[in-house]
Amino acid sequence: MKKTIIENGTFITMNEKTPVINGYMTMEGNRITYIGEQAPSPEATFDERIDGNGKLYMPGLVNTHGHAAMSLLRGYGDDLALQVWLQEKMWPMEGKFTAHDVRTGTKLSVLEMLKGGTTTFVDMYDHMNEVAEVAEESGIRACLTRGVIGLCSREEQDAKLEEAIQFAKSWHGQAGGRITTMMSPHAPYTCPPDYIERIVQAAHDLNLPIHIHMSETAREVEENINQYGARPVAHLEKLGVFSRPTLVAHAVHLTDEEIAVLKNHDVRVSHNPGSNLKLASGVARVPELLKAGVIVSLGTDGAASNNNLDMLEEIRLAALIHKGVSGDPVAVPAWDALKLGTLYGAQSIWLGDVGALKAGMKADFIALDMQQPHYYPRTNVISHVVYAASSRDVTDVCIDGRWIIRNNECLTLDEEKIKFEAQQCFERLTAG
Amino acid sequence: MKKTIIENGTFITMNEKTPVINGYMTMEGNRITYIGEQAPSPEATFDERIDGNGKLYMPGLVNTHGHAAMSLLRGYGDDLALQVWLQEKMWPMEGKFTAHDVRTGTKLSVLEMLKGGTTTFVDMYDHMNEVAEVAEESGIRACLTRGVIGLCSREEQDAKLEEAIQFAKSWHGQAGGRITTMMSPHAPYTCPPDYIERIVQAAHDLNLPIHIHMSETAREVEENINQYGARPVAHLEKLGVFSRPTLVAHAVHLTDEEIAVLKNHDVRVSHNPGSNLKLASGVARVPELLKAGVIVSLGTDGAASNNNLDMLEEIRLAALIHKGVSGDPVAVPAWDALKLGTLYGAQSIWLGDVGALKAGMKADFIALDMQQPHYYPRTNVISHVVYAASSRDVTDVCIDGRWIIRNNECLTLDEEKIKFEAQQCFERLTAG
Repeated sequence: MKKTIIENGTFITMNEKTPVINGYMTMEGNRITYIGEQAPSPEATFDERIDGNGKLYMPGLVNTHGHAAMSLLRGYGDDLALQVWLQEKMWPMEGKFTAHDVRTGTKLSVLEMLKGGTTTFVDMYDHMNEVAEVAEESGIRACLTRGVIGLCSREEQDAKLEEAIQFAKSWHGQAGGRITTMMSPHAPYTCPPDYIERIVQAAHDLNLPIHIHMSETAREVEENINQYGARPVAHLEKLGVFSRPTLVAHAVHLTDEEIAVLKNHDVRVSHNPGSNLKLASGVARVPELLKAGVIVSLGTDGAASNNNLDMLEEIRLAALIHKGVSGDPVAVPAWDALKLGTLYGAQSIWLGDVGALKAGMKADFIALDMQQPHYYPRTNVISHVVYAASSRDVTDVCIDGRWIIRNNECLTLDEEKIKFEAQQCFERLTAG
Repeated sequence: MKKTIIENGTFITMNEKTPVINGYMTMEGNRITYIGEQAPSPEATFDERIDGNGKLYMPGLVNTHGHAAMSLLRGYGDDLALQVWLQEKMWPMEGKFTAHDVRTGTKLSVLEMLKGGTTTFVDMYDHMNEVAEVAEESGIRACLTRGVIGLCSREEQDAKLEEAIQFAKSWHGQAGGRITTMMSPHAPYTCPPDYIERIVQAAHDLNLPIHIHMSETAREVEENINQYGARPVAHLEKLGVFSRPTLVAHAVHLTDEEIAVLKNHDVRVSHNPGSNLKLASGVARVPELLKAGVIVSLGTDGAASNNNLDMLEEIRLAALIHKGVSGDPVAVPAWDALKLGTLYGAQSIWLGDVGALKAGMKADFIALDMQQPHYYPRTNVISHVVYAASSRDVTDVCIDGRWIIRNNECLTLDEEKIKFEAQQCFERLTAG
């Protein structure tokens, strides 16, 4: 197995005791084998030596909620009321999406995510075989799920559930273990209770987690109460969702009691600050969730409601908005925000061996060009990454021990072809 | 005078009728001479022809509030309560700043701003001759002011006011007109009323505008009421501040009545969303200010409370946070946010001939690399700039008809030297 050493780099480890190490990191195959201030033993030989001077290395970013194919609709409908945006812009276009569109949009998104330092992404969408194939080809790590909407006939429900089961079964553990899967009732408001129960049963049978949108808007919470006599958390708890390991997306509108229930069931929350702000959904109670001990991570949501897939931006938003909205300048400090985007991201999808730089962990890491003016003076690199860095500072991306981006260039995907095809898809979709 | 044509570019003009033009722009000397879809007359000859294909051109960004030298303290004190941050971190270090520190920190900031597409900046600080000389040397446009704090003896007050007057007088209109000046009582809570009145009188005598911090925190408003029996707006109005053209920074905590007073006096507001969030000052009432017809622009504030000088980030924050906090998804749409960062920025400092791309305007503009994945598909370039772009997409910067950044390289400042010296200054300041 190939042995690599990075020398004289600055490493953010995500380890509480030694958060920043100036020194050396080695990897062998797909694992980190050493990280420390001292050079490894002089007898050790390496196939590749990398000069880490001026680079900032850190764990790859983990994007825990999104719909990659929606990048085809980036900028197609902004600054609209949510229902207008959905009903007049998104749904009519998404209804026309072919497997080819999903593949192309996903490629565009994966390219953008890789170039911006995201090494793992969660995706909930349709035509998921396309998404899985793009993940496999690109080298990215992915946790994928066919999101099913149950507002349809029993036959359609059956067919969708069967498709979701087949997808989850056939792709779980594939691409050398880079791909895992989940089961996804889309949301409490798009799936009748009995359908949710059947999906939960399937997740039990497959021994897989559940991913679901929950409590994104105040209106949705209100309607859940009107329709089912309970807020979404109690509703999903009653339907047995939380008997499975669960990742909920958004969770903007929560009561103290609901936060306690999520903590009790060890439910993980994907906080999507950019999308929640842009769609005017509100500001999630992240400081309270973290205080309660809930594992919170970050997601971009789809590029149509963000409008990029920039995880450093989500980390910064998480560090900034909760201070400004709560009035507490120590809410979500830089270190916590960085954990949301890395370590907690991995934990949110039950990956124990990514999200930190440590011997034995998988080699999922990124390098940032610290020679830009916004990294000076060298006061505190954690602060610089959270409050000053740009995703365009990312120069190199390594996933599962394989270099995917090197000197800003993607080695696995054809960037020019993807941009050309994405433009073609969009023009075809809007033409007729 | 040198004649230049940019061919086949995409131009965001900031003109309501033709916000985006795919075509041609020409400049002669320091002025834009033509912009349109058609090529200028075939007889026209040019000294330089630039291929604009794949580039997005737009007016340079205008940063209307900051303290450039504070970049030396970037990341030096984050995630602290405001008083701790000020009293234990900022003030002791700033107290040690020499003229050389101010010059070096300002160079670092101007370099960062230029590379990120800012063509004009407002600066309120001490040792302002250093700042002016950096502006002159770098080629950036600047509106500069010696901020005076009056919590001192009459002799010190006199000396500071005299220094501010001399600075304002000697630099106004300098650097080929690129530098203008203002008079600045630092804030209502740092200047006794009679001192503010003397500064206002000086501004009258010099026929210059006033720049002042105002209503940044709720506590400051409360203390103003306790001390002077009035909220800051009424207090400053009574002291005659608004009898001068005035730019107030922050204005986070405003009543409806105060907004009406600001509008009445045509006071301009520099909104600093990043700094206000990070310091937990709150969220300014920008939608209400805009609705009332107040000219609002954007500022980064100093890099110690931001922690970068990225105006595209401020534009994005302005477009996002007011939606999320108000619950109105059409609050501060992309076009409005872009105006805050360009046209309204120029108007905030009474510059009538920058902030838009139009024949007759000064040639202050920037180019962004639209070949990055986050600009695809090409649905709406205004949306892409506001919601998806990165300041690191900026490749070229032209100010007053002179190329300052070309292919990401600064032609007027020595980047490596500045970064080295900034690091040295910081190490000396923290050493003892």
